[in-house]
Amino acid sequence: MTAPRYDTISFLSDYGHADEFVGVVKSVIRSIAPDVAVIDITHGIARHDVRAGGLALARAAQYLVPGVVLAVVDPGVGSDRRAVAVEVGEGASVLVGPDNGLLAAAVAMVGGATRAVELDNAVFHIPSPGPTFDGRDIFGPAAAHLCAGVALHELGTAIDTASLMPGLLPVGGREGEVVSGEVLWRDHFGNLQLNLDPDDLDGFGSEVVLTHGQLTRRVARVSTFAQIPSGSVGLLVDAYGLLALAVRGGSASEELDLAEGAQVQLTDGGDQPSPDTPVELGRRP
Amino acid sequence: MTAPRYDTISFLSDYGHADEFVGVVKSVIRSIAPDVAVIDITHGIARHDVRAGGLALARAAQYLVPGVVLAVVDPGVGSDRRAVAVEVGEGASVLVGPDNGLLAAAVAMVGGATRAVELDNAVFHIPSPGPTFDGRDIFGPAAAHLCAGVALHELGTAIDTASLMPGLLPVGGREGEVVSGEVLWRDHFGNLQLNLDPDDLDGFGSEVVLTHGQLTRRVARVSTFAQIPSGSVGLLVDAYGLLALAVRGGSASEELDLAEGAQVQLTDGGDQPSPDTPVELGRRP
Amino acid sequence: MTAPRYDTISFLSDYGHADEFVGVVKSVIRSIAPDVAVIDITHGIARHDVRAGGLALARAAQYLVPGVVLAVVDPGVGSDRRAVAVEVGEGASVLVGPDNGLLAAAVAMVGGATRAVELDNAVFHIPSPGPTFDGRDIFGPAAAHLCAGVALHELGTAIDTASLMPGLLPVGGREGEVVSGEVLWRDHFGNLQLNLDPDDLDGFGSEVVLTHGQLTRRVARVSTFAQIPSGSVGLLVDAYGLLALAVRGGSASEELDLAEGAQVQLTDGGDQPSPDTPVELGRRP
Repeated sequence: MTAPRYDTISFLSDYGHADEFVGVVKSVIRSIAPDVAVIDITHGIARHDVRAGGLALARAAQYLVPGVVLAVVDPGVGSDRRAVAVEVGEGASVLVGPDNGLLAAAVAMVGGATRAVELDNAVFHIPSPGPTFDGRDIFGPAAAHLCAGVALHELGTAIDTASLMPGLLPVGGREGEVVSGEVLWRDHFGNLQLNLDPDDLDGFGSEVVLTHGQLTRRVARVSTFAQIPSGSVGLLVDAYGLLALAVRGGSASEELDLAEGAQVQLTDGGDQPSPDTPVELGRRP
Repeated sequence: MTAPRYDTISFLSDYGHADEFVGVVKSVIRSIAPDVAVIDITHGIARHDVRAGGLALARAAQYLVPGVVLAVVDPGVGSDRRAVAVEVGEGASVLVGPDNGLLAAAVAMVGGATRAVELDNAVFHIPSPGPTFDGRDIFGPAAAHLCAGVALHELGTAIDTASLMPGLLPVGGREGEVVSGEVLWRDHFGNLQLNLDPDDLDGFGSEVVLTHGQLTRRVARVSTFAQIPSGSVGLLVDAYGLLALAVRGGSASEELDLAEGAQVQLTDGGDQPSPDTPVELGRRP
Repeated sequence: MTAPRYDTISFLSDYGHADEFVGVVKSVIRSIAPDVAVIDITHGIARHDVRAGGLALARAAQYLVPGVVLAVVDPGVGSDRRAVAVEVGEGASVLVGPDNGLLAAAVAMVGGATRAVELDNAVFHIPSPGPTFDGRDIFGPAAAHLCAGVALHELGTAIDTASLMPGLLPVGGREGEVVSGEVLWRDHFGNLQLNLDPDDLDGFGSEVVLTHGQLTRRVARVSTFAQIPSGSVGLLVDAYGLLALAVRGGSASEELDLAEGAQVQLTDGGDQPSPDTPVELGRRP
């Protein structure tokens, strides 16, 4: 059996763009596997924010080209957290990164791990004076070697996929007439994705009441940004199928002063338009 | 007649780098057209700033590789604004994006539209739970399919090129001895490009007087940054052939407290050096 | 003798991501040399910071794919500073950029210049209305032409490699029991790289005393971020073999209020743990 040969590496990190980190990892990859294409998913994950990195990876997962996924958000670099490669789909793709929960949600999204190894075969590492840049020294080389035809099992010791660190994602849901959720993601435009889906609002009217601490706000349910009444906040189904708070042409995060991790409650606001939102009603269920 | 096969997609957006938007669009493109090269023009356009995106695209236009241009600055995503593909040069290139004026200046720069379609053939869309990410679901796939050999007319209904939304660019110019213009662009270095060209200053001396509201400032006309006297502001012909205000080793925008859209007037300052700018005279017309 | 044909351009600049500068240079390159791969080292160098750009290039140098290096941090664009191409390794690679010291440290890292030319052959320039964007008009085209098979000597007049502007890097070192150094680099994570290596601390205990102006701070010597006691600052050997100040899960730059260029002194702190750092001792020499 020959190893699969992957031709694409999808790369996510918290390296940012101020330094040469991303470029050096790509140079190392090209030195090992000259013909591989590297697609930057994003390098703008907040420093050390494993949860945010894992969520971004999970959102992207279903759209990625089959191949290798290289993900590095790694506050424990140099500690005894494991460096791993996780196969999914019986070899369809391999995710490479630290075993700190970063990969978990994406792995689950694509059907779960079929095999995994710890990247402990130093033959495939780059020698380094200090253990602070595993993207360059361990993860990037592993991803590249997989593309160059090295088999997964050559990269290190097989490990039980059940031993991989799980991702801890907050679960939202409904209890009676109160729907409780959390802001999963504040995107570049200020939209706030919740860990709730439209079914959680079954039976609610065209408006819901949003509460968060002292904040209480009537919110129109809409299908598109354009339907959000000017000056108001809308609640729509976003491009990932989850509920999201949005402001037309503005930032819901700024308007509501809500950030990632904020707990919110939604209750039925009925069908009558509030004084705040006199025009352009959203859809009714 | 076979459709042209394009091998390059030049990609501009306001998606920023904090999220996975750009990476996901590229992944979708590679899934459809594996061999196409994607060149990022920029993804740093200010959120929803259609004018700034259109200007950046127009500045870049003459340097782009023939092929597909994918441009997404789309505050009206999900509304009834059209998604379009605009052919230029009888098929030399195709610009894909929202019909909101974003493409207009670039299309004009390269000779105008020869054909256009509305991207309403859902066969070439990606099914999506919500209408908020047309870059991933409509525009990116259209760009990729054009590279994979799909003909323009297959992507949707032909539309009259005269019906495309125009770009509204402010026109500057001279009335008698007063030249009135506007700051088109504040670049990363703080240089301020005006919608004026050197001919607008015909007959003026080596200095001009800049006014904006309460601001009055003598400005030396120079050929290079290096000729700008220390502590002064210079006016030069920039790399696009337009007049630009600049400070040597600093930011004209900060020095003058001027931003994009600011209205300015220029009048003749004569040839004598002012007390502010005693050294290194600029060129004289 | 045929010219070497390079297939990779490693690209560093201070162009940032807000404008289309990087994309336009890449478009120009692809127009001249369609098959070349461009790897972005970084475009996040602080505006006009030649020293920071030179250091980033030097850190990256040993990891870059052989080929062409395109580096543009160029406050003197348009002045009489020379535009150059510097060959290293008898043609193994060529570095292209302004002759302002930016390339010097990287050139030295890879063995020194073997030949150099001034990029004064206008045949290989792009005509431009103004001399403010040499990355697009001179440097990018030169890099691309080298990849397309143009020989170094065709790009312009040969110059003495000894005439190239040196990089001025601060030298740190030890005088008796006091080790004096400087912060070379504050990375995205807030780690502070010093111009000192571990040998400079020979004979010191497990802690050192850091001083900078009024600041005095005991610092644990550690091997990994994970060994840094919570609430303390650690000193480790970084991924480049130099000493670096770090905080676990945080920013040493913020904790110590130190930036690039800051002068620091290190003295022996002995082996006893201080009250500030009661746990998890670092390695002992």
